[in-house]
Amino acid sequence: MVIPIKLIFMEKIKVNKKIKIQGWIRTRRSSKIGISFLNIYDGSCIHTIQVIAHSSIKNYSTDVLCLTAGCSISIIGILVLSKGKSQKYEIEAQSITVLGWVNNPKKYPISSKNHTTQYLREVSHLRARTNVIGSICRIRNTLSFELHNFFFKNEYYWIPTPIITSIDTEGSGAMFRVSTLDFKNIPKDVHKNVNFKEDFFGKESFLTVSGQLTLESYACAISKAYTFGPTFRAENSNTSRHLSEFWMVEVEQSFSNLNDIIKLSENIIKYIIKKVLENNADDIYFLEKFSKKNLFKKLTYCIENHFLQIDYIDAIEILKKSNQFKTDNICFGIDLSSLHEKYLVENHFNNPVIITNYPKLLKPFYMRINKDKKTVAAMDILFPEIGEIIGGSQREERIKILDQRINECGLNKKDYKWYRDLRYYGTVPHSGFGLGFERLMSYVTGMSNVKDLIPFPRTVKNSSF
Amino acid sequence: MVIPIKLIFMEKIKVNKKIKIQGWIRTRRSSKIGISFLNIYDGSCIHTIQVIAHSSIKNYSTDVLCLTAGCSISIIGILVLSKGKSQKYEIEAQSITVLGWVNNPKKYPISSKNHTTQYLREVSHLRARTNVIGSICRIRNTLSFELHNFFFKNEYYWIPTPIITSIDTEGSGAMFRVSTLDFKNIPKDVHKNVNFKEDFFGKESFLTVSGQLTLESYACAISKAYTFGPTFRAENSNTSRHLSEFWMVEVEQSFSNLNDIIKLSENIIKYIIKKVLENNADDIYFLEKFSKKNLFKKLTYCIENHFLQIDYIDAIEILKKSNQFKTDNICFGIDLSSLHEKYLVENHFNNPVIITNYPKLLKPFYMRINKDKKTVAAMDILFPEIGEIIGGSQREERIKILDQRINECGLNKKDYKWYRDLRYYGTVPHSGFGLGFERLMSYVTGMSNVKDLIPFPRTVKNSSF
Repeated sequence: MVIPIKLIFMEKIKVNKKIKIQGWIRTRRSSKIGISFLNIYDGSCIHTIQVIAHSSIKNYSTDVLCLTAGCSISIIGILVLSKGKSQKYEIEAQSITVLGWVNNPKKYPISSKNHTTQYLREVSHLRARTNVIGSICRIRNTLSFELHNFFFKNEYYWIPTPIITSIDTEGSGAMFRVSTLDFKNIPKDVHKNVNFKEDFFGKESFLTVSGQLTLESYACAISKAYTFGPTFRAENSNTSRHLSEFWMVEVEQSFSNLNDIIKLSENIIKYIIKKVLENNADDIYFLEKFSKKNLFKKLTYCIENHFLQIDYIDAIEILKKSNQFKTDNICFGIDLSSLHEKYLVENHFNNPVIITNYPKLLKPFYMRINKDKKTVAAMDILFPEIGEIIGGSQREERIKILDQRINECGLNKKDYKWYRDLRYYGTVPHSGFGLGFERLMSYVTGMSNVKDLIPFPRTVKNSSF
Repeated sequence: MVIPIKLIFMEKIKVNKKIKIQGWIRTRRSSKIGISFLNIYDGSCIHTIQVIAHSSIKNYSTDVLCLTAGCSISIIGILVLSKGKSQKYEIEAQSITVLGWVNNPKKYPISSKNHTTQYLREVSHLRARTNVIGSICRIRNTLSFELHNFFFKNEYYWIPTPIITSIDTEGSGAMFRVSTLDFKNIPKDVHKNVNFKEDFFGKESFLTVSGQLTLESYACAISKAYTFGPTFRAENSNTSRHLSEFWMVEVEQSFSNLNDIIKLSENIIKYIIKKVLENNADDIYFLEKFSKKNLFKKLTYCIENHFLQIDYIDAIEILKKSNQFKTDNICFGIDLSSLHEKYLVENHFNNPVIITNYPKLLKPFYMRINKDKKTVAAMDILFPEIGEIIGGSQREERIKILDQRINECGLNKKDYKWYRDLRYYGTVPHSGFGLGFERLMSYVTGMSNVKDLIPFPRTVKNSSF
């Protein structure tokens, strides 16, 4: 049986036992006296295991001495305590089989030296072979699994909300069109408009920007629902915080108000970060060195302390008094810029901050109007270094006010016929939120560019691989 | 605290305790002597809880007597053992608050009578309020969570492979195009071809038909990887087994051959079905009555018996001898039709069947050529009633043969440059498979149309909701 390297470092394998491991060469160092030291990784953990190969191995000169970074090999040997100081265990090889050579090692894009993350993006198909992307991969796995685990334990149902849609949930319009029409010969109707009736779905269709509305229809039937899937934004913004295709967790819950959903999101974030600290301590330790940020301290602080909560109107007051911004521009109604958010979260509070009750003009039609008729029962959770990680609200369950908001936002009631049905037939108070998965990962891993946190980033002018 | 109805039927709530429940009315029956019987569901289980409301409740005549199917309510009362025979528990209501009325009850699309599944698809936004879709929803949740759970426990890493892609993995060409070009004014280059350089991604881009190739790049770095996400097929086929957007689980594993992956898929299927029988017995029991199929017996048989395994060539021999098909048409090289598969699985074996080693001409370029040079190390798992549920293979890890296959299949080596890198630099023997999630659900739930197994089905001329 093949042993994952992880099990060795978890002390699950007895010393002096004969074992088989399989993996790839990180480095080889050969001495003149006929010993080679091979460092092998297999992806199961951040550690490499050192393999000692003596010249007595039968393919020593033909194979072992030719091994380079990236070759895949299979090793049978004895697990021993290392005599060297830099590692606890090593394997005394009895046989080594080369499974795959690296053709043209000088051109191998992943050398054992440090590469910039920017360079690694150009070789996204090979970058998982590096320590840094390996660690990110394992942390992503824990975060994703523990999200599902949290929801399963708490009786939320996973709903695969549709990716192809005809509705623009956010009303922003920056959507990708999905079509099978022949681009050389787009069919037109009698008014010379594009005839989408001839398209695959018989009408204009897009990639979803959010699964929220369809998810609400499930929450209004089974009480607690979530979705975790890809979402798409066709905005022409090429920043370290934007992807054209990213993963989002969305939750909708009946019989709940804004406060319920605030508590829920704080609980979820803390739950999954705690799990990462338990499962992936080695990876976090490695990334702490890599990114030169105090990850452990930051994440421990995050799970041990309450997120602060302030009203939008109080946030405005703080910004006014800060002397950092032109006071004239700071007033009720402004959209907080990323500089404003940065100031609040990093300078003023130095803590995750939940901002509630935004002006209705800044938010979409489905958020619940407060008694003041000017604000909505919305909340954003802002994290240091990252900005918005979660956005949510109580949803407008009152059909009359919903209709009014649809009008005010310049939308067409007909387009939302089925959504309005949820209020027309047995409406319930309910609320929900969306969590940007790669942004959360950015916070947890300390990596500042979301492009490094999804295997194959899709951005403006880039759908490579 | 609000109690999910499920907890009552799990016997987790003490009798004579005061509790609060929230949910929707399934039925109301009122007697002339001033008692109403309300059946309430909240989505947490198939059961409704009966609530007894006496006319002494203060809003009895104004509210309780007006309640209709679908109204949402909040109830405080005492949990008691029922005096009636048709249920074990009921709640003696102390107060009832109506949260949401059903406007125009006569037009409410979800009455308490039985609707056809076909009708329910027309009201997909409300159908989760029915017993049948509720049960499907809870079973889907168990299947999906236990899939993640299996992978997490066995150290497979979840990889969100890209949805937008420029590669046609299956080489079938039935893909949806993704674009932000203005359809009224498609830009052309000097040769009058569509100028995709002006499109969002700078080249022709599509919705993925499979995450396999990109997933392989991770398996070739971290050993064990899986993806679970939406996939898309633009085929113009409107059958009960096809969706334009469906969910697929894909696994890729290094250092493994065809047999390893066959064992793995059988283990996974049995593991998750076992969990459904443990977690969702009530839902399976309900669906058994609904679909009039022996679900329990079938699922128990499935997890307790080995899947049968035969070679493609032996399958051909069986079909030849069957007297069911024209013998002339049955020979090495033919693609098994659904009638052939049906005969093998339902008539001849009456068991799930794994067919291996298909002719290479029937399969894509990436499957590993066997020693006979005519067949590939592929496998399909066929299930009674459903047909193919899983398709997989050992992957061609030898660069020379891979290149030959790319040529043979009429594909362009340039397009697969990065994929070929995986073989060029430290190739490994590896294998993988894809599992169609809605087809598996069809088997587990006994529902014959995959459109009933995804919340909002996308099919030819239909992207509603």
